[in-house]
Amino acid sequence: MIENSVTKQQEVIIKMVLDAWHLKVSQFDKLLVELSDEQLLKEVAPGRNRGIYLLGHLTTLADSIFPLLGFEKQAPHLWKPFVQTSDKDSADVLTVAELRQEWIKVTTMLWEKIAAISSNEWFERHSAISEEDFLKEPHRNKLNIVLSRVSHVDYHLGQIQFLKAR
Amino acid sequence: MIENSVTKQQEVIIKMVLDAWHLKVSQFDKLLVELSDEQLLKEVAPGRNRGIYLLGHLTTLADSIFPLLGFEKQAPHLWKPFVQTSDKDSADVLTVAELRQEWIKVTTMLWEKIAAISSNEWFERHSAISEEDFLKEPHRNKLNIVLSRVSHVDYHLGQIQFLKAR
Repeated sequence: MIENSVTKQQEVIIKMVLDAWHLKVSQFDKLLVELSDEQLLKEVAPGRNRGIYLLGHLTTLADSIFPLLGFEKQAPHLWKPFVQTSDKDSADVLTVAELRQEWIKVTTMLWEKIAAISSNEWFERHSAISEEDFLKEPHRNKLNIVLSRVSHVDYHLGQIQFLKAR
Repeated sequence: MIENSVTKQQEVIIKMVLDAWHLKVSQFDKLLVELSDEQLLKEVAPGRNRGIYLLGHLTTLADSIFPLLGFEKQAPHLWKPFVQTSDKDSADVLTVAELRQEWIKVTTMLWEKIAAISSNEWFERHSAISEEDFLKEPHRNKLNIVLSRVSHVDYHLGQIQFLKAR
């Protein structure tokens, strides 16, 4: 069963993707330490999303990884205000301080869950694709979820860092 | 030699990473069509890099992938003005129109080279790591170069899209 065995190279690949996720989360952690609550209440650029909104957005997008890997969301109440509602239409349902805690809670728990996933399991289908479709599209596996989310974090990191003083 | 053979799952992983690269390049291509030369000459946010600088920056960063994979750079003249020099200190050595062409040239050629790399080769060391270090850190392979650059493109994509009209 060579085709289904986990080789050393696959272990390497899993490490590459999980390291990349961990690095991005750490970079955002560091940025959050550098930014005050006041700074996070500002728009990242004129007329664009505020830092607080992007913090909530990234938290709920990280949270949305749980069900795709077969776990329960940790912060389901954030989906509506930070994905379904735009920043300009949102009432501030949480303070910056609360959202900082939610980010830590979600990413810490996610890392615990991720670290416990076996090498073979990373190549199994994620929960949003049917068995039938997965046979045709085997790249739609659990590891690919993490891979695509790394890039999404970076997209908004590039924006939020505009809040830092020049 | 199970450990060195390329399994179906590894092929899947390579597809995941190369698809991710291709997707990001396509997204930037699309954004470039939407933005006029005039818009690209503006700062993405007050006091931040201009679109033209980020276009040159992303082009030369894509170009810097070539030597890591064992090929020659296509636009080595862009490294100094768009990596070693900050936007505020840079003289505009190329026009937006010229940079648009450089981006297309570099990414098209890169895609041709990438598509011809064999599955096993993706897991070989890239040129910036010694054989000795690679034995200890096998994740520093050619595929990891592309993986990390995907995220870097997204970082700046999130900024450049601020140039679009609201």
